[in-house]
Amino acid sequence: MNGAHLLVHTLLDAGVDTCFTNPGTSEMHFVAALDSVPGMRCVLGLFEGVVTGAADGYSRIADRPASTLLHLGPGLANGLANLHNAKKAGSGIVNIVGDHARAHLALDAPLTSDIHGVAAPMSHWVHTSASTDGLAVDGREAVVQARARPGRIATLTLPADLAWSEADVPPPVLGAVPCAEPAALQEEALRAAAAALRTDGPGTLLLLGGLALRERATEWAGRIQAATGCAVMSEFYGPRIERGAGRVAVPRVPYVVDPALAALAPYRHIVLVGAREPVAFFAYPGKPGRLEAPGTAFTLLATPAHDPAQALEALAEAIGARRVAVPVVERSAAVPHETADALTPANLGELLASLIPEHAIVLDEAVSSGRGFDRATRAAAPHDWLTGMGGSIGFALPAAVGAAIAAPQRKVIALTGDGSAMYTLQALWTMAREGLDVTVVVFANRAYQILRGEFAGVGAGVPGRRATDMLTLDRPDLDWMALSRGLGVPASRADTAASFVQAWRNAMGGRGPVLIEAVL
Amino acid sequence: MNGAHLLVHTLLDAGVDTCFTNPGTSEMHFVAALDSVPGMRCVLGLFEGVVTGAADGYSRIADRPASTLLHLGPGLANGLANLHNAKKAGSGIVNIVGDHARAHLALDAPLTSDIHGVAAPMSHWVHTSASTDGLAVDGREAVVQARARPGRIATLTLPADLAWSEADVPPPVLGAVPCAEPAALQEEALRAAAAALRTDGPGTLLLLGGLALRERATEWAGRIQAATGCAVMSEFYGPRIERGAGRVAVPRVPYVVDPALAALAPYRHIVLVGAREPVAFFAYPGKPGRLEAPGTAFTLLATPAHDPAQALEALAEAIGARRVAVPVVERSAAVPHETADALTPANLGELLASLIPEHAIVLDEAVSSGRGFDRATRAAAPHDWLTGMGGSIGFALPAAVGAAIAAPQRKVIALTGDGSAMYTLQALWTMAREGLDVTVVVFANRAYQILRGEFAGVGAGVPGRRATDMLTLDRPDLDWMALSRGLGVPASRADTAASFVQAWRNAMGGRGPVLIEAVL
Repeated sequence: MNGAHLLVHTLLDAGVDTCFTNPGTSEMHFVAALDSVPGMRCVLGLFEGVVTGAADGYSRIADRPASTLLHLGPGLANGLANLHNAKKAGSGIVNIVGDHARAHLALDAPLTSDIHGVAAPMSHWVHTSASTDGLAVDGREAVVQARARPGRIATLTLPADLAWSEADVPPPVLGAVPCAEPAALQEEALRAAAAALRTDGPGTLLLLGGLALRERATEWAGRIQAATGCAVMSEFYGPRIERGAGRVAVPRVPYVVDPALAALAPYRHIVLVGAREPVAFFAYPGKPGRLEAPGTAFTLLATPAHDPAQALEALAEAIGARRVAVPVVERSAAVPHETADALTPANLGELLASLIPEHAIVLDEAVSSGRGFDRATRAAAPHDWLTGMGGSIGFALPAAVGAAIAAPQRKVIALTGDGSAMYTLQALWTMAREGLDVTVVVFANRAYQILRGEFAGVGAGVPGRRATDMLTLDRPDLDWMALSRGLGVPASRADTAASFVQAWRNAMGGRGPVLIEAVL
Repeated sequence: MNGAHLLVHTLLDAGVDTCFTNPGTSEMHFVAALDSVPGMRCVLGLFEGVVTGAADGYSRIADRPASTLLHLGPGLANGLANLHNAKKAGSGIVNIVGDHARAHLALDAPLTSDIHGVAAPMSHWVHTSASTDGLAVDGREAVVQARARPGRIATLTLPADLAWSEADVPPPVLGAVPCAEPAALQEEALRAAAAALRTDGPGTLLLLGGLALRERATEWAGRIQAATGCAVMSEFYGPRIERGAGRVAVPRVPYVVDPALAALAPYRHIVLVGAREPVAFFAYPGKPGRLEAPGTAFTLLATPAHDPAQALEALAEAIGARRVAVPVVERSAAVPHETADALTPANLGELLASLIPEHAIVLDEAVSSGRGFDRATRAAAPHDWLTGMGGSIGFALPAAVGAAIAAPQRKVIALTGDGSAMYTLQALWTMAREGLDVTVVVFANRAYQILRGEFAGVGAGVPGRRATDMLTLDRPDLDWMALSRGLGVPASRADTAASFVQAWRNAMGGRGPVLIEAVL
């Protein structure tokens, strides 16, 4: 058995059975090992941002890491932007990055690069294996790192000569690496949060993030809300928000600074549960970077290293809310208005509210078009809502690949702006090859619409001709029908509410990938 | 005048008048400055790999740097793979990377990233400006760095607050930064090279790389060859090879190890002129990494810091070859065979030999399909031939954008494999928007064909089903006609020699971008 076989065996033993790949020559022995070692599902992406974004989406839905296979420094570099998102999401990922054989590194061949340097900014753990036998230990340690709480980005560099050399140790049979145990509850924080809720419930906000946005945690938050009159909100971004009818409503802190300030103004005490102190996404001249009202007190009840549901349960217990009924959202009875109205962000939000099917997984990178979707879809059928977390665009399509691999029985819906979708459109091909049940909706406003707002927001005035050219995607218009078909995914175009509903129903009625270009 | 205006003025004054951009919020003041400061040509790319690859192509043709505008760490990360190629090519590039306002960095907003860490592996110089007034000095220094010999990758981080704050200094009026002077000739190396040529001309090889592949340098090499019977070859990769009829033939060292060993076996002395000691692209079990015959002596006549034409002229002088006639290739009289034969790498090479128009710029990322193109096209009309240099794929389409911006009067031809083209296909849109006169030929073999060879080459045997899936681009086939049209570039498909010639003639007869899918 060579090193590549040993490493594949090690990953499988540790519970990693999915590998998103974009290999090159230095990874050929690893690819060969995939043939002879059964059990690893291999999914090819035609660009590395697809590979890493898929691993992020997979981790969020499967709650365990996938591996990636990437080609030296430049291949890894192409995957960094989505590793940035995954890192901020607390996703666990094991990156296997092939490198030149060690003796070849000294020759400084063209593809020689500082893989450690490329990996470091977007990884929690970076390691280069030093021996073939050591791959068993290193591979398992990478999985242990990825299964930390929160998940971590573990990058293991595999020199080609270690992959092709014979190993003298048998593959490990240690069994799946479990997720790390949560940190112990912080009693002092618990007391402070309980005191705030008792003395000033309506002036207190439970701000949820990370795993606190899963259903079980939000139920405890809902009980506390019902008992004390406190507010419950989510960070603007959430790695996986379990929401919709039958669940507790958890509005998101708005993206835009002034509405965010207004949303947080009523609270004198903010209890952070898997969330961080709220800050603006960008700095704007003359606007604050912190979003809480001046003088607000913070209590850090649960970090991402804790189990937020456990922390909230303890808090409910402390304030005597254990048996309070959970205040859940009722399912909207609305039916979609199949009108001839042109599509707008507003009516798209309304349509989605009635159209999202039960248990769907929604990847949200709708950017400016999706600003109102949170409010609009609160009473939709219960579903999961995943956002990019790190603000690096090109997230939704790759993450949809990973989500669909992790949950093949669920409908996956990727909502994306046209600008965002362009960064990693290669993901459509992987959806087609794997027959993934993903419905992609591209909101075609033919602009970096968010930047047109930001241009004014940063005080840059009104864009002139050259600036406008840098903010628009017209001349020529992107033809998403053609792009989608070119990548093997059937597509249709909708420009009215009625045609959007029709296209959606066609997508939901079948299986396999479909793209809808929603022209705004 | 704010910092962004000051920086744009500074770049223009220093001779940088082209900016390839993919901006975000943190770059909005820079974008606004492009409106009010005349003279900067701005070209939008819909993915950062397009932006950096375009800057590489521009630098190689214009012989001066362009700037790029990128959005924080993830945006820069998306551009790293083509910066890797540019770095290995000796291209000069000035990257302007926006960052959060400095006060905002402490808040660790989602897009906060280690920009310096991301930049370092693919940059020669990384600097973060510390004051608005300092942008004039920093901007000029970035251009000085980019205009080193060879060119360098200079990355300047621009915190948003420096861009939007008022500057107290006027914009500089120092004038264009010249290219750095070449290093002084190495007399000892000159004597050693002359001695080798005098005593054993036929056993000596002049191995050319970098700027030694420009016409003037190859003419001196040709005179030396004619006078001494030495051989003249090029490294496998060349940043810009001026070749074809009327010029000296400079065969490339083959990519594959065994043919490369055979090609270099006859030589006991290799004189390096802008080239490095030849090494294999990858390591293979049981094969050598170094390509020269055992015992070969090397003389480093000119590093990339020298002027190789000057060094070769001095060498010609030293051996009395100054007035020898330059042995040039005669123009092939062949006409293209417009047969019904299916397209193959072999007949495509023959067709290209007769079809490449005079003074064309050819971007070569044909990978496996193009292995024979060097030999086949030596007697084509004179043209420039540019390769990816760093081995990072996704080079040809972006570099074609930059080459066409640098030389709008020349025909630009991008030869690319289908696998390679997928990494940065967004470049087609920029070609359409800018109306660039680029003909893209996609060689559609529907596989990572090179990897199928490499799989055997590294001794991994015969790929099984799972490995084959990781090496093929079928199921579904990519439809390059649809992809191209989706990005606004008219396209046609050719699967016979006759239909390829017809599509080519249509492309050459018009102006503006065209894509030909050559189905193999």
